[in-house]
Formats: sequence, C-alpha cells, structure tokens
Amino acid sequence: MPNCEVLRLGHRPERDKRITTHVALTARAFGATKIHLNRPDSRIVETISDVSEKFGGSFVIETVSSPKVFVQSWEGIILHLTMFGMPFGKKLGTILKSKKPLLIIVGAEKVPPWVFEQSDHNIAVGNQPHSEVSALAILLSKINPEGYNQTFEDGLLEVIPSSERRNMISRK
Amino acid sequence: MPNCEVLRLGHRPERDKRITTHVALTARAFGATKIHLNRPDSRIVETISDVSEKFGGSFVIETVSSPKVFVQSWEGIILHLTMFGMPFGKKLGTILKSKKPLLIIVGAEKVPPWVFEQSDHNIAVGNQPHSEVSALAILLSKINPEGYNQTFEDGLLEVIPSSERRNMISRK
Repeated sequence: MPNCEVLRLGHRPERDKRITTHVALTARAFGATKIHLNRPDSRIVETISDVSEKFGGSFVIETVSSPKVFVQSWEGIILHLTMFGMPFGKKLGTILKSKKPLLIIVGAEKVPPWVFEQSDHNIAVGNQPHSEVSALAILLSKINPEGYNQTFEDGLLEVIPSSERRNMISRK
Repeated sequence: MPNCEVLRLGHRPERDKRITTHVALTARAFGATKIHLNRPDSRIVETISDVSEKFGGSFVIETVSSPKVFVQSWEGIILHLTMFGMPFGKKLGTILKSKKPLLIIVGAEKVPPWVFEQSDHNIAVGNQPHSEVSALAILLSKINPEGYNQTFEDGLLEVIPSSERRNMISRK
C-alpha cells in the first residue's frame, strides 16, 4: 500500500466535529498514516490522539495553515473524492502502480474550485449524495482490501472478536 | 441482492443528527431499501425525503416505536455491526446464499445487551474504532459490490460525472 494521507477540507468546528472525527478514525483504521485538518480543532485532535494511545499505531493528526499551498507542494498523486467525479474504478490500478504517495482530499459540503483544478483525479464513489466517511472507507478499502483488519502496535487495549459480546483486554 | 434494511439504534437527536443522516444516505446510496430510526427526528426524515425527491428512488425512512419488538419480529437474518464482532468475511457467503431479507443494525455508541443476543451475527468491519458509516458502507458494498453505482429512477437531478467540475442536470 502506498503512503496515504487525508486532507479534510472545509471543517467547521461548530458543525462538523463528529463527522470529521469519523473521517479521521476511518482514515486511521483503514490504513492512512495522517490526516490534515484545514482548521485547528483541539477536541478532534484530543479524541484521535486518545484513540491512538488506547488502540495503538502511529497515526498523526495535524492542522495545515494553507490547504492550497499544502496541496500544491504535495509530492505524489492527489485524489479528490467528490460525488461529481468520475468512477474511480478504472483509474485506480494505474494510480497504484506508480507507488507514489497519495493525498486524498475529502470536503465537508462545497469545496472551492481550486480543489478540482489542483487534484490529479476528481473521483466518485457513486454519484449519489451519501457521506465522505463512506467514500473514504470504500476508496481506502480498494487501495488496501484488508486494511481495516490490520493490527496496530503498542495499544493499551485490544478487542477480542466475539460473536456474543463486548470483549476487550488490557495489554499493559 | 437480498432486501436489506437498516435499523439505527441509540440515535440521540441533539447529538447524532449528522451521523445518522450519513448512515441513512449511505444506506440509500449503497442499495438498502429502508432505514428505521429508534426515535422520531423530523429533521432527518426531511433531509432524507428531500434527497430522495431530488435524486430519485424509493428509499423509505421510518421510526419504530419498540426496536426490540421490531427486531424480534424480523423475518430474515439480523446482522449487528459492532467493532466487537467477528470478521464478517467468512460468514457473508453463507448468509447471502440463503437469500433471506437482511436487517443490519448499527448503533450510536453502546448498544444494550439484547442487541447482541437477538442478532444472528455480531460482525465487525475490523476491530478498531472507526465509524458506523464506514462499517455500513463496507458491508453493503460486500453484499452488492457495485451497489453505489446503481441508478435511481425518477429523480429531479442527475450528476454528470466529470473529471473537472461540478455538473448536474435537471431531468424535469
């Protein structure tokens, strides 16, 4: 799996806190290494850092001061997830063959036109309105089909899968 | 694809409005026919009805007065999505072969123990914390791999996929 990072655009702290948290947790669980927010939000940083401490791994959350400059300086391939984009299926094989780092942009509602212009591929997970959380999960699972079954190192807690009940053990 | 319906449990209107909306939109876009909420929330019903009117199809949103009675009377297979469950991969083939209607339960945070007990399968999309929206998207996409590319009848708007910009046409 190439290195994948996520840029969450248009995050509005008062409105998007929980959706952005789900975007970040999905990014982590499905194998991305880092999420970049376009606006500081200490509550989300705290939630995600807390999950990483408890469940392990080295996922990073940070804030970029200028998303546009950040995107322009990305050395790799930029994928913008949008319901207006092209089906990603056909392109993904070629993209992955390049083994270049991927930046996946997910917006909260309407993104500015530069996002379409600066992205190498504007791609859709279907063209119906649904959720950036779903779209990111599907795309990451196509990049790395078993990504969500990966193990994370050095967590304090581990779920013991069960068909009957909640079961977690403390590893330390 | 067997008939799939979703039961959203533990919806708290003040807190979960947007996540539940994303769960419902994901259910619709990925091929489920109906979502049942455990608590009335007119704002979500309005949002989902509005999307269905604009983008077509016959997705239904409704409220159940007793989720437990509803689950107990389900004639088909009950799948509970939980990070504590078993990997769904191994079971899904057998489940789909039965062609019985599927009820997929997704909770908001902690669900009561009866959900584990009444479900035929407690299954996980990985055992890391992420999002019920992601989990539902992945499960539905495994049940119907191209479900999110289906077309919806009788919508007022249609997205014309583009690699460059937002493009929608009005069909009426």
